Amino acid sequence: MKLAIDAMGGDHAPKEIVLGAMDAVSEIDNLQITLIGDENKIKEYLTETKNIEVIHTDEVITSDDEPVRAVRRKKNASLVLMAREVKELRADACISAGNTGALMSAGLFVVGRIPGIDRPALSPTLPTIDGKGFLLLDVGSNVDAKPNHLVQYAIMGSIYVEKVRAIKNPTVGLLNVGTEDGKGNDLTKKAFSQLKDAPVNFIGNVEARDILSGAADVVVTDGFSGNVALKTIEGTAMTMFSMLKETFMSSLKTKVAAGILKNDLKGLKGKLDYSEYGGAGLFGLAAPVIKAHGSSNRRAIYSAITQACHMVEHNVTDTIKTTVESIQLEKE
Amino acid sequence: MKLAIDAMGGDHAPKEIVLGAMDAVSEIDNLQITLIGDENKIKEYLTETKNIEVIHTDEVITSDDEPVRAVRRKKNASLVLMAREVKELRADACISAGNTGALMSAGLFVVGRIPGIDRPALSPTLPTIDGKGFLLLDVGSNVDAKPNHLVQYAIMGSIYVEKVRAIKNPTVGLLNVGTEDGKGNDLTKKAFSQLKDAPVNFIGNVEARDILSGAADVVVTDGFSGNVALKTIEGTAMTMFSMLKETFMSSLKTKVAAGILKNDLKGLKGKLDYSEYGGAGLFGLAAPVIKAHGSSNRRAIYSAITQACHMVEHNVTDTIKTTVESIQLEKE
Repeated sequence: MKLAIDAMGGDHAPKEIVLGAMDAVSEIDNLQITLIGDENKIKEYLTETKNIEVIHTDEVITSDDEPVRAVRRKKNASLVLMAREVKELRADACISAGNTGALMSAGLFVVGRIPGIDRPALSPTLPTIDGKGFLLLDVGSNVDAKPNHLVQYAIMGSIYVEKVRAIKNPTVGLLNVGTEDGKGNDLTKKAFSQLKDAPVNFIGNVEARDILSGAADVVVTDGFSGNVALKTIEGTAMTMFSMLKETFMSSLKTKVAAGILKNDLKGLKGKLDYSEYGGAGLFGLAAPVIKAHGSSNRRAIYSAITQACHMVEHNVTDTIKTTVESIQLEKE
Repeated sequence: MKLAIDAMGGDHAPKEIVLGAMDAVSEIDNLQITLIGDENKIKEYLTETKNIEVIHTDEVITSDDEPVRAVRRKKNASLVLMAREVKELRADACISAGNTGALMSAGLFVVGRIPGIDRPALSPTLPTIDGKGFLLLDVGSNVDAKPNHLVQYAIMGSIYVEKVRAIKNPTVGLLNVGTEDGKGNDLTKKAFSQLKDAPVNFIGNVEARDILSGAADVVVTDGFSGNVALKTIEGTAMTMFSMLKETFMSSLKTKVAAGILKNDLKGLKGKLDYSEYGGAGLFGLAAPVIKAHGSSNRRAIYSAITQACHMVEHNVTDTIKTTVESIQLEKE
């Protein structure tokens, strides 16, 4: 198996990308990695080259670049060359921690869609209290979704969760403003009735209040609401940690108590850290494309690599393709 | 000033409603309250009747009732009679901690809209790290909003925040998937350009990640996304508190440390408790209508009462009315 990785994407590139890649090839059998980026910078950290190849390029897409334009104009950017490795079948899957919009553009315009899938969906796995996690899609790839897009998300999400996360017959919930049937806006009302007929384990509407408690294994929503939900989780957690810190630092007494709890609280932070579940998959493309978190460290990159490997091994893309084809055959 | 209060709405009705009402009349000058509900149950807690009047009714709308139907059929329900007190000018404002949907229906069909406002907006004030708080609207009154609705929310929200929360020239942000101009879905792109021309202090797009850090004093969004944001904040906070509790209870050592921190952590919980800021206003109606949180205790009811009093004293409804009229005159 061969993965192409954008060595220049993310806050800690190329160091943590290179370290994560070296960890992965030493742990995972039959894995070959192509790192794409500035060869000199990569080689500063690349102490073991077995099964790791480097494609050099000077060009980089930054987080400030306008995504669509950047992908079109910077044809030799590490992120674009990475996508081309997959398109031209020299790699089975690819990973970048760089500009999310640019990765979505490169996914769409370079890697290409699975026939029958209208829109790819950006799909992170988020933590739940019980540690099982749930897949949320879409979180921003397609901000003006139509009801049938949500059905496609449900199918793609179910296949991923069943194959890669080994959850049998995963439950699918529709993010909505109430749990009762018939709730919601025009989009969710129409999606609800289409989801009832889809080949997934649809359990109805779920509320944002309950998704972190594990209301469903797969939660589908339009990219706008999904983005709001994802960023609200991040913002609320960040706010609470900063308030906790302030509380702990408020007096000598609280400082002492906080010192005792330090390791246990780190565990709590780890539980909420969704990089443990790998990156966000960009589902619906002709090959697995993974968006690792921008702040990815070595461990997060390693997780994203194992995730990509699992997607390739379990034929997630092909399964989505044949499932979508069979539904379309039924319709005809 | 006279307020009508649904004594039967909420998880702790009528007890906490009655206690909160008694606190308010004893603290606030010239305040008269009409409690509407089961007289026998109310009188169990009503130990001081000065400035408090009771209108008896047996009928109640429960949280399971279908809102629109309930308001139409249960014409003598406490919530409906409360709205009628306002409509028929026997009260200046009203408060219920009951069925949110039913209160929105009663607001729309009994109290009625301000001319020129297309849709009322449910508008809670949420906590920020600095304790200043921000107004989020709409959180579910209108799940299929149009761009001009968001402009009306911005105007109503700014007037409320300036008059009641005494924040001069409050900033208005548009909830979006990125902070750059031109980001978003069809709705937010159109709303953005209309907001630039609106008589408010529009500062552009804000992300859900930053709203609890005080990105804007007023955050406008469609009712679907607003509801998702509100419930995600609740769900994430709940999840984190339950994880914290689990961490604290995990060993004797952590239990001891948690015991030391107990009071400080209560303060943290209080900071996140948005009932401190009163209830959610239903803005755009012909008189102030306040939705107190379903789990309101005596203190939350007291906060909602002071909030209603401020809205009446500062002529929030009239100011919205004249502002909307002047904009329409300009357009003609």
